[in-house]
Amino acid sequence: MEHQNRGRVTIPTDLDVVPETLELLRRWGADAIRDCDGTDYPEALKNTDAKVYATYYTTRKDNAWAKANPDEVQQCYLMTGFHTAVEGPLAIPLMQGVSPELLQVNTRDDIRRWWEVVDRSTGEPLPPDGWRYDEPSGCVVVDRPEPFHDYTVSFLAYLIWDPVHMYNAVTNGWDVEHQITFDVRQPKTHRYSLERLRKFIAERHYVDVIRYTTFFHQFTLVFDELHREKYVDWYGYSASVSPYILERFEKAVGYRFRPEFIIDQGYYNNQYRVPSREYLDFMAFQRREVAALAKEFVDTTHELGKEAMMFLGDHWIGMEPFLEEFASIGLDAVVGSVGNGATLRLISDIPGVKYTEGRFLPYFFPDTFHEGGDPVREAKENWVTARRAILRKPIDRIGYGGYLKLACEFPEFLDYVEQVCNEFRQLYDNIGGASPYCVKTVAVLNCWGKARSWGCHMVHHALYHKQNYSYAGVIEALAGAPFDVRFLSFDELRQDPGVLDGVDVLLNIGDADTAHTGGAVWEDPAVSAAVKRFVSRGGGLIGVGEPSGRQYQGRFLQLSGVLGVEKETGMTLGYDKYNWEEHRGHFILADCAGPVDFGEGKKGIYALEGAQVLVQREREVQLAVHGFGAGRAVYLSGLPYSFENARLLYRAILWSSHSEGDLHRWFSENYNVEVHAYLESGKFCVVNNTYEPQRTVIYQGQGESFPLALEANEIRWYPIET
Amino acid sequence: MEHQNRGRVTIPTDLDVVPETLELLRRWGADAIRDCDGTDYPEALKNTDAKVYATYYTTRKDNAWAKANPDEVQQCYLMTGFHTAVEGPLAIPLMQGVSPELLQVNTRDDIRRWWEVVDRSTGEPLPPDGWRYDEPSGCVVVDRPEPFHDYTVSFLAYLIWDPVHMYNAVTNGWDVEHQITFDVRQPKTHRYSLERLRKFIAERHYVDVIRYTTFFHQFTLVFDELHREKYVDWYGYSASVSPYILERFEKAVGYRFRPEFIIDQGYYNNQYRVPSREYLDFMAFQRREVAALAKEFVDTTHELGKEAMMFLGDHWIGMEPFLEEFASIGLDAVVGSVGNGATLRLISDIPGVKYTEGRFLPYFFPDTFHEGGDPVREAKENWVTARRAILRKPIDRIGYGGYLKLACEFPEFLDYVEQVCNEFRQLYDNIGGASPYCVKTVAVLNCWGKARSWGCHMVHHALYHKQNYSYAGVIEALAGAPFDVRFLSFDELRQDPGVLDGVDVLLNIGDADTAHTGGAVWEDPAVSAAVKRFVSRGGGLIGVGEPSGRQYQGRFLQLSGVLGVEKETGMTLGYDKYNWEEHRGHFILADCAGPVDFGEGKKGIYALEGAQVLVQREREVQLAVHGFGAGRAVYLSGLPYSFENARLLYRAILWSSHSEGDLHRWFSENYNVEVHAYLESGKFCVVNNTYEPQRTVIYQGQGESFPLALEANEIRWYPIET
Repeated sequence: MEHQNRGRVTIPTDLDVVPETLELLRRWGADAIRDCDGTDYPEALKNTDAKVYATYYTTRKDNAWAKANPDEVQQCYLMTGFHTAVEGPLAIPLMQGVSPELLQVNTRDDIRRWWEVVDRSTGEPLPPDGWRYDEPSGCVVVDRPEPFHDYTVSFLAYLIWDPVHMYNAVTNGWDVEHQITFDVRQPKTHRYSLERLRKFIAERHYVDVIRYTTFFHQFTLVFDELHREKYVDWYGYSASVSPYILERFEKAVGYRFRPEFIIDQGYYNNQYRVPSREYLDFMAFQRREVAALAKEFVDTTHELGKEAMMFLGDHWIGMEPFLEEFASIGLDAVVGSVGNGATLRLISDIPGVKYTEGRFLPYFFPDTFHEGGDPVREAKENWVTARRAILRKPIDRIGYGGYLKLACEFPEFLDYVEQVCNEFRQLYDNIGGASPYCVKTVAVLNCWGKARSWGCHMVHHALYHKQNYSYAGVIEALAGAPFDVRFLSFDELRQDPGVLDGVDVLLNIGDADTAHTGGAVWEDPAVSAAVKRFVSRGGGLIGVGEPSGRQYQGRFLQLSGVLGVEKETGMTLGYDKYNWEEHRGHFILADCAGPVDFGEGKKGIYALEGAQVLVQREREVQLAVHGFGAGRAVYLSGLPYSFENARLLYRAILWSSHSEGDLHRWFSENYNVEVHAYLESGKFCVVNNTYEPQRTVIYQGQGESFPLALEANEIRWYPIET
Repeated sequence: MEHQNRGRVTIPTDLDVVPETLELLRRWGADAIRDCDGTDYPEALKNTDAKVYATYYTTRKDNAWAKANPDEVQQCYLMTGFHTAVEGPLAIPLMQGVSPELLQVNTRDDIRRWWEVVDRSTGEPLPPDGWRYDEPSGCVVVDRPEPFHDYTVSFLAYLIWDPVHMYNAVTNGWDVEHQITFDVRQPKTHRYSLERLRKFIAERHYVDVIRYTTFFHQFTLVFDELHREKYVDWYGYSASVSPYILERFEKAVGYRFRPEFIIDQGYYNNQYRVPSREYLDFMAFQRREVAALAKEFVDTTHELGKEAMMFLGDHWIGMEPFLEEFASIGLDAVVGSVGNGATLRLISDIPGVKYTEGRFLPYFFPDTFHEGGDPVREAKENWVTARRAILRKPIDRIGYGGYLKLACEFPEFLDYVEQVCNEFRQLYDNIGGASPYCVKTVAVLNCWGKARSWGCHMVHHALYHKQNYSYAGVIEALAGAPFDVRFLSFDELRQDPGVLDGVDVLLNIGDADTAHTGGAVWEDPAVSAAVKRFVSRGGGLIGVGEPSGRQYQGRFLQLSGVLGVEKETGMTLGYDKYNWEEHRGHFILADCAGPVDFGEGKKGIYALEGAQVLVQREREVQLAVHGFGAGRAVYLSGLPYSFENARLLYRAILWSSHSEGDLHRWFSENYNVEVHAYLESGKFCVVNNTYEPQRTVIYQGQGESFPLALEANEIRWYPIET
């Protein structure tokens, strides 16, 4: 049994902070210690009763090997920019805008086979003899281009500096030897790496947990000549390639590989792209291969008596934890960075591991821990934002990373974290492994399904973009809301409409012609019919932004008949539009005092006859509802995360599933406060999500209510009286 | 010779305003009198020395004929709304949402041949035996539809009430017999109509001009059961069809007709749609046929000693005046309604007629001429807005329409129009037929070219839409600016890149995937290469909104390499964007004191490396410039019409054509004042476009300048000293 004041907390350490580490083990009740990139584990801490995590870098920190085996350095596909031919030969510099410290053109493998020069004016690749590589200038030359056509070159480059090491070095101003990558998938390095792992473990008798950071392939992360980030995709597969891998891919799928499968016109199959069949095949192939290889590492770890923990991030490509191969790997634990509620669920929802751990912010790096910095504010925001998600599905542990020495200079920060650790242990014990009460089951429908669970719209871990916050806000709201949340792909729906069984409300969220809303997928009548059937028979549909947005057969929103709204793109300006009256008294809006924040919103949405407009601004509909058969649909132009908007979404889900009558169950009248009930463990809690005191009325499971005043951020636990 | 105080003005009359008509002939210096829909020409005015116009309705005002020949009543294609099949038969009511007073389903012709039921979930038409028409219920029934597919019916309906007559009757509250249309293209009505015309003329010895309103086919105008406008397209061809015509079309083009050619998924080939080849064929066919038939009417008119004038509007389909067939008709004159500068040029630029006339606003209808109405304000706005266009290309006459009796109750209005008439005659005389000095030649590039000259983005005559004013503003600015303005289609450019010879600056204006920016046209490398070649060799390009917007081969704006900007649609969120610094001191912005009004603007535009951002708002570029080869490009997110924005456009055109040095020629420092020079007639004028006095400095042709103060709206004429 864990004692209430100890356990479930991991702290970082380093050679220069031994006494501080011991002090914080006590104060924070930490029971595990870890090292970090750029730190060493102190001798003096090898015999505490805390578990010890050793970070293991599968693909770097062995330049001797990397230099001896340059053919097995990791590679990535890159596309140059677009270059316009004028008259005469066109020279395309491959490395323009790319850091030569990070990447080196691969001319070792057959460039005729693995490179591609594409005429982007026609979309056609040039024949291999239509271009040549001029090594001294680093340019591909097209001797007889079509004048004023645009050309790109897709090519392979070696990752001669690990992108994460480069990021850490640049961010912290390290002057260190660049750690070269090596590709564990390839035969020599594969054999060598397993030996290297055995050696690493053998040298560390005091270590309990091998913390893999991570396995084999870094997500796409490219820097430019000025060391600035040039391109990032947390889900990107473009750095998981090599001729060795691609030849195996060809054999597995039975068709010829083209660089364009990975390059994807320069979009690199990022998660906004409706994925091609070839890319889905490649992802599946990589997952299978990566999982099999990761299992070898995990088995070895177990054989040597250690636990295997995976850091969800960095070199995690091929390790999507919500897909079937993952559980076969046999990992003991997953740890990941917590940026908000959605990224918390990204970790805590992972099936098939013994425990999960969240690394909280701020990371003890000088970007926050400097004179004038305010780490307490950052920690508080991070904790309160994540807490509502923890209450839905707890991680099993929390932890911190970075340089402890920096944190120790902020005593108020140490105090605050102490409080967080105690609060976390209390809520973990109170939940006691019970599933929280779920009011409804909702499914987010997009091209990715489980592969992007909780990470829909995310470019890089919890990173804000003007173009995504109005959509990611819905996912964030769901992360802490009393719903069973599923992530469903169009492919699953197409193969078996039965996947909608048990789902109360479908959500389709995002811009038109993206993977999040489906794009060309809607040209398949099996998809549109399945959704219409679901709603027509009583299901709910919530569309946000440009749901089902795809210009096809007379409509821009393919579900406009269900949603009761359509988008004006100029095509329907000739149609008069009379439905603008606002119905502000609607159930969905009942808790909105002022104007609703729709975030970026959408231009040109108008209501069809029969729809009820709840909010329009300057003749652009922001919120509307519509009946379709026995079902109900809600349109929202956007919904950034806020407590008020989380409530609006909550009401929209109840309304669209005909469950307005269920509102007053495990419910707080004041939307700044949330209620979570754990029927199995006989407890419920009331939690104030704000930094101010709140008053509210709380409704229990049968609608019985009581008034309540809470301190700022307070969480209060109650037994469920039966 | 016209006397300065008489001529070039047409006024309406009616039985009850004979003395007033005579008085206004004198006061306004009018030299022509016209009748209107719902008025009669007074006996007492048959012998004035004014010319008399008689409005002739080619397709209505003869219900006896229409009723005797129901098979030759005009027809239009309609598409029902989208209807979702559930289980079992699907019944689609044809006339839902359509006025039964206006339209009647045509079951006389073979519905299996001329109707089409389309599965809009697949895009496929049903076989003719896949549906049946249930006449009692007015429904097409699909007995075995695919469950949850959406269906539409395309069908023919008779226009049993002329849409313009219906509009006039509804607007004025007339309780009159509905005037039924008849189709002059069909054999019986064709023969009859020529006799009817001869009779009409023979009965009107006092008439000088037959004012055709117009010829044969009404633009698309549909009302709903509540007499509300349901659909309008001033350029729409969907009411110019009948099996008779369509069979001839099939013979002419050599392929089978499908209703979908006209229905176009319910978009009816409106001007925002990238036109299909079949629709362009149909337009060309109609123009040829309509022109030939119109020529018969014009020849007959001439034979009987009258002039033939065409009203540009109402039944003007097939009579596009900027296309080649038009001049062959032999019309003497065109008259049209003036809504602004662009619609003025739509009339005054027409080649191949002896004279043009603008009908100014307000129309003497009770919607303006009622107690509390302010017709002077409307007239002033109309005149001042149109005047700058008249100064570029004068119409030859001005005129008014409606019920004179109403106008006579507003003596200040009569005074103001007197002043306008005098001012018009003065400027017409001063210009003396000379071409105004043009600083540059610009070409508006879109799918329509000349067919939509001055009418780009226009849904209905000068009608404001939230979605078009930011683009139509550019056309309006050009209407009064010192440029030679051409309208160029992608087809012309594709067939002969030489059409760009003599053009200084190309403009591409509008939303992505519309006919105004080109959509799929950009997938043709011949088009993109021609534009890039033009700019690369020193030409200018101004893109407004989403110029060349089409998702294709790695780019959303196909000319992003030229424009230096791209649109973020989610696909490039992974790319870091560093170019946000504003360069406010640029030549283009030099006359903008405050924030520029970009109208609706555009979301998500970002600058590429090498571009100069002039204005960005919340990280969305509104105005940027970029060099490309020897040429220059300007990106604008939108540009509603204002004097300040007209100046911004002026500067953008000069900058993009490397002609900053030409700024101080025939130029006013104050952008509320414009200068127009007529070198051939040796005069120039300075015109205050505002309702307040203005001070400025005027620059003449060699840059010599003088200060000037002008009264509100004042126009002042000067000789050019050589």
